[in-house]
Amino acid sequence: MAFTEFRPLDEKCLVEYIKATPALSDKIGNNFDDLKIKEVGDGNLNFVYIVVSPAGSFVIKQAIPYVRCIGESWPMTKERAYFEALTLREHGRLSPENVPEVYHFDRIMSVIGMRYLEPPHIILRKGLVAGIEYPLLAEHISDYMAKTLYHTSLLYRTTTEHKHNVAEFCGNVELCRLTEQVVFSDPYKVSEYNRWTSPYLDRDAEAVREDNILKLEVAELKSKFCERAQALVHGDLHTGSIMVTRESTQVIDPEFAFYGPMGFDIGAFIGNLILAFYAQDGHADQGNDRKTYKEWILRTIKETWSLFYKKFTALWDEHKDGSGEAYLPGIYNNPELHQLVQRKYMQDLFHDTLGFGAAKMIRRIVGVAHVEDFESIPDASKRAQCERPALDLAKMLLKERRKFQSIDEVVSAIQQLQ
Amino acid sequence: MAFTEFRPLDEKCLVEYIKATPALSDKIGNNFDDLKIKEVGDGNLNFVYIVVSPAGSFVIKQAIPYVRCIGESWPMTKERAYFEALTLREHGRLSPENVPEVYHFDRIMSVIGMRYLEPPHIILRKGLVAGIEYPLLAEHISDYMAKTLYHTSLLYRTTTEHKHNVAEFCGNVELCRLTEQVVFSDPYKVSEYNRWTSPYLDRDAEAVREDNILKLEVAELKSKFCERAQALVHGDLHTGSIMVTRESTQVIDPEFAFYGPMGFDIGAFIGNLILAFYAQDGHADQGNDRKTYKEWILRTIKETWSLFYKKFTALWDEHKDGSGEAYLPGIYNNPELHQLVQRKYMQDLFHDTLGFGAAKMIRRIVGVAHVEDFESIPDASKRAQCERPALDLAKMLLKERRKFQSIDEVVSAIQQLQ
Repeated sequence: MAFTEFRPLDEKCLVEYIKATPALSDKIGNNFDDLKIKEVGDGNLNFVYIVVSPAGSFVIKQAIPYVRCIGESWPMTKERAYFEALTLREHGRLSPENVPEVYHFDRIMSVIGMRYLEPPHIILRKGLVAGIEYPLLAEHISDYMAKTLYHTSLLYRTTTEHKHNVAEFCGNVELCRLTEQVVFSDPYKVSEYNRWTSPYLDRDAEAVREDNILKLEVAELKSKFCERAQALVHGDLHTGSIMVTRESTQVIDPEFAFYGPMGFDIGAFIGNLILAFYAQDGHADQGNDRKTYKEWILRTIKETWSLFYKKFTALWDEHKDGSGEAYLPGIYNNPELHQLVQRKYMQDLFHDTLGFGAAKMIRRIVGVAHVEDFESIPDASKRAQCERPALDLAKMLLKERRKFQSIDEVVSAIQQLQ
Repeated sequence: MAFTEFRPLDEKCLVEYIKATPALSDKIGNNFDDLKIKEVGDGNLNFVYIVVSPAGSFVIKQAIPYVRCIGESWPMTKERAYFEALTLREHGRLSPENVPEVYHFDRIMSVIGMRYLEPPHIILRKGLVAGIEYPLLAEHISDYMAKTLYHTSLLYRTTTEHKHNVAEFCGNVELCRLTEQVVFSDPYKVSEYNRWTSPYLDRDAEAVREDNILKLEVAELKSKFCERAQALVHGDLHTGSIMVTRESTQVIDPEFAFYGPMGFDIGAFIGNLILAFYAQDGHADQGNDRKTYKEWILRTIKETWSLFYKKFTALWDEHKDGSGEAYLPGIYNNPELHQLVQRKYMQDLFHDTLGFGAAKMIRRIVGVAHVEDFESIPDASKRAQCERPALDLAKMLLKERRKFQSIDEVVSAIQQLQ
């Protein structure tokens, strides 16, 4: 079997594919006798196979030219696999501890072969629903975000490198358009794809569509998303794109990656932690009231931003005389001014983070794609009781984000609005 | 003679080139007997030949791979001619009355053949130095800016078209870097290229380099210039890039074009008009105190922004149900909200315009490239007396731009600071 043009892989075909691909067959010691293959793609878009043999293992991810959970009626370029592989490699180079290694990429077949994140790795979102604490999560994810965002920005790079990379990732436009639609547009208008916990949130969903100030602010965020090439962002950094154990944090699925605003990644992560926080009351039972766990989530939100701030500015300090072209040493050489520009940059980034985080929260409550945190609460009335305060907080954050000076103030607002 | 690889044209070689190029030889009726050729490139970068015969005429502009006024020691990609031709055609399609027609483009030779702007067309800057009023200037230039900026933004275009074009113009990175250096960097640090009217402005130049708040604000503008792909901007829209008669306004030389912030173009034009205003006292003599002319310049500044505002928002209103993806009709359909977002968009653009305009003024007084408005004032002391208030106004505008609500307030500030 030759693989000179695209075809969707099935299990049989996959074995042939591995045999024809040394980078993969070497990983399993070229032994096909005890091979175990399992399809596990639970996402909306792709097929994912786990391939395990006694000698080794890997994951095969294949993009198909439509949205898997909807079907061929919603076409979606399989070229997204190219941008995913590119980003896994680039982010992996910058933050190797937190990105699984890519063994193989095939652009024609839209196939990525990469490290299998063995058990007990689970999707972070499932861990949050189960009430599991991850003591190193904030440390790891702040590390990943600081390293990937700093090093792909003009703080570290020359304009020449930057524009070269921006141009390349303009090719991932179909995935950017999908985000524009589901995050910045559909929740604010009548759309066949929108859904919410009905009838409880009918009025809330309507209020989102009728809130002029909210729509004014979301337009500003959408402009930033479409126009501002600040760094190579993951583009979909919610808690379903992260696999964890107590000791390990691995970022996967960067198929939405492009040069966009940094706050879109940081906000996605923090916004989804806030959603997890509000979902806890729906998971509380007599054995576990989840109060301690809610405290842990809030602590993790605080630590994520604080550690990110610390690490990002430390990288900036370290390389301030390097080749990055945003703040030339000849101009920004005095310590007072260096602090001044840094504080302004980080404050703007903080406000972007709150805005994007809030937008990501809203779309998960009244838009097309919901989150397991809430969806796994079977009683609709109870679910709505968790979702409504999350939605209210998000609306307030999006509209008032510029009034917040620190992450502590955000966490206080969450606690007070309870 | 074949022209299969790049070579700089001289007059003899140019005739051969025209003979081999039907798009050009047809323009002069294929008659080479009474051909007049004149080299007129007075710019810093290129060679420009005027070609006239009894049957017709055109201009030949050739980019050479270095900065003409400095020599081969400052290399500069000749690919800039490609982006210039692309922009002349795109802007010409959008605003045909105000952009000269392109007859021919040769990427290998970096040659553009285009309409010869016959006398009495002169460079606007020379007209401003001479004290000539152009009653239609604000009308024409606002038309050009509104049409080109609106139609190349996400207000009119889809994300798909936009990212495709953004990627293409990322290729013009060398010219973007030149702007970064001469506008946003060199004036704020010690640089061998900087000059100013010494010794009179020694202290003023030093003050620019030591002004932390100014440097903080210019960093924000530089970020916007480097990161924000808002529309296809001309990139160098000062009064030396415009040819005029009383009836005609023609925008030339868009070799710095790229997808950047709209305010960079509007600010360049308005900032250079303000420079012309401050230079007038240096050109006043017993026959003409230039007072009436200064009033005309201020009126033209007001009209340019007011007309731009009116035309740009009219285009927006006209196409608000079109394919532009920034403000979808399903979300922004109510008249009150439409007004709200439009007012916010235009206010942000106004503040960008003031910021970029001020930065362009500063660099013309303490940076590498100065303007004839001031340079033609022979007495250095008198020149410095004109430059200093221009510099002071620019510094104030750059730092306080967000406090201005209207162009009238800006003009009042100019009048009061006299």
